[in-house]
Amino acid sequence: MTLEGLYKELADLNETEAQTIHKLVQALKRTRVSPLAYIEELMNFQPVGYNEKKDVYVHRMLITDELKNRFKILHGGITATFIDTAMGATVFQALGPDVKVVTLELTVNFLAPGVDGWLTAETKIVKRGKTIIVMETKVTDEREKLIASASSTFFRLDQEVR
Amino acid sequence: MTLEGLYKELADLNETEAQTIHKLVQALKRTRVSPLAYIEELMNFQPVGYNEKKDVYVHRMLITDELKNRFKILHGGITATFIDTAMGATVFQALGPDVKVVTLELTVNFLAPGVDGWLTAETKIVKRGKTIIVMETKVTDEREKLIASASSTFFRLDQEVR
Amino acid sequence: MTLEGLYKELADLNETEAQTIHKLVQALKRTRVSPLAYIEELMNFQPVGYNEKKDVYVHRMLITDELKNRFKILHGGITATFIDTAMGATVFQALGPDVKVVTLELTVNFLAPGVDGWLTAETKIVKRGKTIIVMETKVTDEREKLIASASSTFFRLDQEVR
Amino acid sequence: MTLEGLYKELADLNETEAQTIHKLVQALKRTRVSPLAYIEELMNFQPVGYNEKKDVYVHRMLITDELKNRFKILHGGITATFIDTAMGATVFQALGPDVKVVTLELTVNFLAPGVDGWLTAETKIVKRGKTIIVMETKVTDEREKLIASASSTFFRLDQEVR
Repeated sequence: MTLEGLYKELADLNETEAQTIHKLVQALKRTRVSPLAYIEELMNFQPVGYNEKKDVYVHRMLITDELKNRFKILHGGITATFIDTAMGATVFQALGPDVKVVTLELTVNFLAPGVDGWLTAETKIVKRGKTIIVMETKVTDEREKLIASASSTFFRLDQEVR
Repeated sequence: MTLEGLYKELADLNETEAQTIHKLVQALKRTRVSPLAYIEELMNFQPVGYNEKKDVYVHRMLITDELKNRFKILHGGITATFIDTAMGATVFQALGPDVKVVTLELTVNFLAPGVDGWLTAETKIVKRGKTIIVMETKVTDEREKLIASASSTFFRLDQEVR
Repeated sequence: MTLEGLYKELADLNETEAQTIHKLVQALKRTRVSPLAYIEELMNFQPVGYNEKKDVYVHRMLITDELKNRFKILHGGITATFIDTAMGATVFQALGPDVKVVTLELTVNFLAPGVDGWLTAETKIVKRGKTIIVMETKVTDEREKLIASASSTFFRLDQEVR
Repeated sequence: MTLEGLYKELADLNETEAQTIHKLVQALKRTRVSPLAYIEELMNFQPVGYNEKKDVYVHRMLITDELKNRFKILHGGITATFIDTAMGATVFQALGPDVKVVTLELTVNFLAPGVDGWLTAETKIVKRGKTIIVMETKVTDEREKLIASASSTFFRLDQEVR
């Protein structure tokens, strides 16, 4: 795909669509310097820090139109993506950058629709085993309404099994 | 965002990035005429049909670079999005377009990484209650390797509760 | 079965076995005056009260030999039974005795073996909908070690659906 | 507890209660020669065999009054116990008696009440990894009605992790 071809393709976009493509381009450009995947940049995924009092790792994402389903609320799959990403980032922050993990299993309870604004994920490590890590995440919106609650089992790949 | 502003933004893209934006624009344009959400178009989500012998509804998606995580395999959240979308589409196909549902709970077991090509989801309705619908989905790749297995509880909104 | 027949059957029990049957008889007799099922009496299931500060309903059970698996730790199924019973009792306490519910789905993460003594379940209602109730339960032992963490979706039968 | 003490305790049982104690004693006596736990004997848990065509391991249990909840249907916790036991027995049959496993996580969807007669569990191994085993179990009653559907992640303890 040449740039000229791309320009032609864009010529019939209306203003809202141009705005959407602008956001998609911004997300793509962020992946040039970020360790995040494109889909995570599309969510504006960001670490907020460690809440020592609650013993939870905090992350956030922004609900935008591109992430909504046909009923104009946040796509449940994106909620799951946010949770999975927050859990993976928590392992990275809590156990160090050399720990490699895969998700074995993820259970999400969807409690209320995600409508707009920033969502916050608070992730707690409930088991920190040699090979098994179990985490729980609560997702709330800016009104502090609970949107989703999830649990997940992760497996450490860096623990060599012989 | 004006088109001219957008063109400037695109000027420094390399060829691979231009190709990515091309795909994103195509996905956005498909939402003009499709009932699918943008994220579903990005996955190239498609219905394949009903397999009468197995009693499953079949859907598929294409693994592309935009949908991968930093380890260059399909993002687990996208697998969950594919499953949730396939289940929602199954309700639509099996119960009719007037049935409105929300996902109450989704459990996904991740069994093998999604690497490339088309993924196929086979969804079975295991309970078809007045208000509760329970479905199970198996996701396989083109080599017929089982990538993920999931179960989910959906709630019918069209059944008025007084 | 006549009592005499039963007496004959018991004649070859050793002391430990007689002790076990004693406990089983006690549990059976408690069901005469208790709303609890036999299996719940066998677990010595008891309400402890509502912890206002934590906003959780507290219940407990006693690990006995009859409830262990062949590896001499608490049977995982009994842990699940304890959790399901604690959640059902929580609905009863929080919403009143006329509310009838069934469990739609239960997910349990087993975090450490149950070895001996009393187990405590703390149950929080995370969604209290018109027809859907979602709860989360944490099970700890007397050393405050986390044994299991669970989430569950309950359905209210008393909300008539027309 | 002496036998004489036990006899006194039994003196006021009515016929139904004596019948219940009879079954409990029979279950206890079976544990003398069986590898099963008491709770499994109480369920009359039995292996039925391997169904090669379906590639599932089949087990069964008998619904009795002792296993019911206060609504006179099978206690959901016992359904979970049946499933967990069937999965453990499947590992034993499929991988050999030296393989030691623990349940990491169990998700059960309760689809219909268990009322009476024998329940059948069909268990399929969907992932047979070096350390992780994922299984799915379907529970049906004698009318072939689907009572419950479950998935579970097991962890092999015999694979030494260094």
